[in-house]
Amino acid sequence: MQRLRYQQKAASGAARLGTMTTRRGAVDTPAFMPVGTQGTVKGLLPEEVAAQGAQIILANTYHLMVRPGAEVVAALGGLHGFMGWTGPILTDSGGFQVFSLAGLRKVEEEGVSFRSHLDGRLLRLTPETAVEAQEMLGSDLMMMLDECPPPGAGRDYLERSLERDARWASRALAARGPRGGALLGIVQGGVHLDLRRRSLELLAHLDLDGYALGGLSVGEPKEVMMEVIAATVPRLPQDKPVYLMGVGEPADLVACAGLGVDLFDCVLPTRMARNGTLLTPRGRLNIRNSRHAHDPAPVDEDCGCLACRRFSRAYLRHLFMARELLAYRLNTIHNLHYILELMASLRQAIRHDTYQAFARQFAARLAEDDDPGEAFTEGGKHV
Amino acid sequence: MQRLRYQQKAASGAARLGTMTTRRGAVDTPAFMPVGTQGTVKGLLPEEVAAQGAQIILANTYHLMVRPGAEVVAALGGLHGFMGWTGPILTDSGGFQVFSLAGLRKVEEEGVSFRSHLDGRLLRLTPETAVEAQEMLGSDLMMMLDECPPPGAGRDYLERSLERDARWASRALAARGPRGGALLGIVQGGVHLDLRRRSLELLAHLDLDGYALGGLSVGEPKEVMMEVIAATVPRLPQDKPVYLMGVGEPADLVACAGLGVDLFDCVLPTRMARNGTLLTPRGRLNIRNSRHAHDPAPVDEDCGCLACRRFSRAYLRHLFMARELLAYRLNTIHNLHYILELMASLRQAIRHDTYQAFARQFAARLAEDDDPGEAFTEGGKHV
Repeated sequence: MQRLRYQQKAASGAARLGTMTTRRGAVDTPAFMPVGTQGTVKGLLPEEVAAQGAQIILANTYHLMVRPGAEVVAALGGLHGFMGWTGPILTDSGGFQVFSLAGLRKVEEEGVSFRSHLDGRLLRLTPETAVEAQEMLGSDLMMMLDECPPPGAGRDYLERSLERDARWASRALAARGPRGGALLGIVQGGVHLDLRRRSLELLAHLDLDGYALGGLSVGEPKEVMMEVIAATVPRLPQDKPVYLMGVGEPADLVACAGLGVDLFDCVLPTRMARNGTLLTPRGRLNIRNSRHAHDPAPVDEDCGCLACRRFSRAYLRHLFMARELLAYRLNTIHNLHYILELMASLRQAIRHDTYQAFARQFAARLAEDDDPGEAFTEGGKHV
Repeated sequence: MQRLRYQQKAASGAARLGTMTTRRGAVDTPAFMPVGTQGTVKGLLPEEVAAQGAQIILANTYHLMVRPGAEVVAALGGLHGFMGWTGPILTDSGGFQVFSLAGLRKVEEEGVSFRSHLDGRLLRLTPETAVEAQEMLGSDLMMMLDECPPPGAGRDYLERSLERDARWASRALAARGPRGGALLGIVQGGVHLDLRRRSLELLAHLDLDGYALGGLSVGEPKEVMMEVIAATVPRLPQDKPVYLMGVGEPADLVACAGLGVDLFDCVLPTRMARNGTLLTPRGRLNIRNSRHAHDPAPVDEDCGCLACRRFSRAYLRHLFMARELLAYRLNTIHNLHYILELMASLRQAIRHDTYQAFARQFAARLAEDDDPGEAFTEGGKHV
């Protein structure tokens, strides 16, 4: 059974246009996956996520394991039945949250033990139970459990870790049931090109359905991230999708698609929306800014999203300042629409082999930003 | 110019079916007005409010005066343009919030001075400025400024207050511009039937477009409230709508429509929704209850709302426990749908002159409530 099929349709430099066929339908790549952490893309109905252009979403195994529990979701028809999203769903392994959220972690050959961030329960994730949980969720694209090495981990640590990851990848494959979804491997190795090569060589001979780049966008300089991606992607199997985990900054999407990345996910557009930061072709717009208080214009004249077609900056600012629920919803619709339209434009450019011109024009419009002071800050979190 | 027309279509006992025609369309009465305090019915788009059956909504002048300001709303096309609701809007005068929310109040013949609950600014509301603010908002049905007497106010206080109210009603009428909306008077007098009579006599000779009952459901025993309504409604002009302010408990809607009330508003269904309390024909359901954790059934098998057609109790509970934005939205849709369907059934019963049977059956189903412990508590407020 082929659980995931990737077919390249066109290329423009290293950028590639393709179709990824899952058991729940096709996805045009390069694609961005909105994040539905707890079985919902925050504030939106599934049809609203799809209406912005999403063909696939991501859900977080760790969050769903601790609440409401993978068995509960399984009994209610899996994530698709539970939340009403009918397209493909990619789930992470739970590992990333174990390493970033949970307490009292212990990594051993067998797996990782940790305490739930919600109630302190002692839990355990192994390559096998991570697959089991994802199968209970009904995941179409499962991720192998890997270690997310601590920041500043040295070469030796990273090497031992990626070798263990490769053994975990074999165990994950062996644990997958006959009805399990596709399983993607994760290439680690930090910023060391030789370790990245070693990691992908160890994974390449396994029958994985695709490959992800892990451990990037975790604080390293942007040019280092780009160098690692540029050196790694060409060595991955060309007939399988390449997924760059956790990257969603618009400029990074454009740049990394240019290096041949097919799949992206990130909380950035949805989280920024809830913090009042709106994405536009000319950069970020902080809807809290008092200059919008009387402005009848939409956030972006050229945007076709519901928020821009129907409401003024003044109204969106009012909703946000008044902490109205509708603010988070409209802002989320706008940012997802922006990101998913950007991906559609990228695909169009690759199809016409005009990627370079597209990337240049994208950068030039960003540089026009009339509001450079509106940088995104994590502060002032609303919801 | 007739700003508001009421036409009675049928009656069943004291209950009456009618059509209230505003400059922005007709409203079938008895009607319930969802509350959009700050220029949005919390969490919903205007079309979602309409889809549940709402033909008219209420907005709060006080809240919109202090943020974003009535002038700001006026410059953006009034509330209709600002928020995108095209049907009629009733606005309160701002008085109720001045008396319940704002600080340092001082009531004089001229009007009331108070401090904004947001920033402590000293503000003033007079019969004239209350009309002016409502006209700036583009209100279709404006309420006169009245005093909301303090709890426990004695007869003498109430009498002086309602006499001042009558003078304020004349001033409000005189202040209304040629393009202003309908203006409704407010009958006060507490629980004293003779004071209620005095209040309505003072107002009856004014050319007001409708009459509201104020100062009820403020802590008095329910049978006292019913007695005041029963004694007052028959003395009001029969060719004008009667509005009972701030009442929205389902049993009260049924009972008070039976006494001839045409219009209701209340935050109860929407606020309860955000606290996880769902209204059903068999009473209140607390979605937090762990017995719903694995339940694939909808909240109400017979309910046609989006939440009940598409999602399980288990999913709604998960969303609520995880404090997901979608929880508040789906719960709000359900509760508004329930209340607005209840009003439609009431109208149907009056049309067929079966109000008494309807009210009996309604009470009998409530008495079947399988979950009497799920009383609504103000505690545990989410948003």
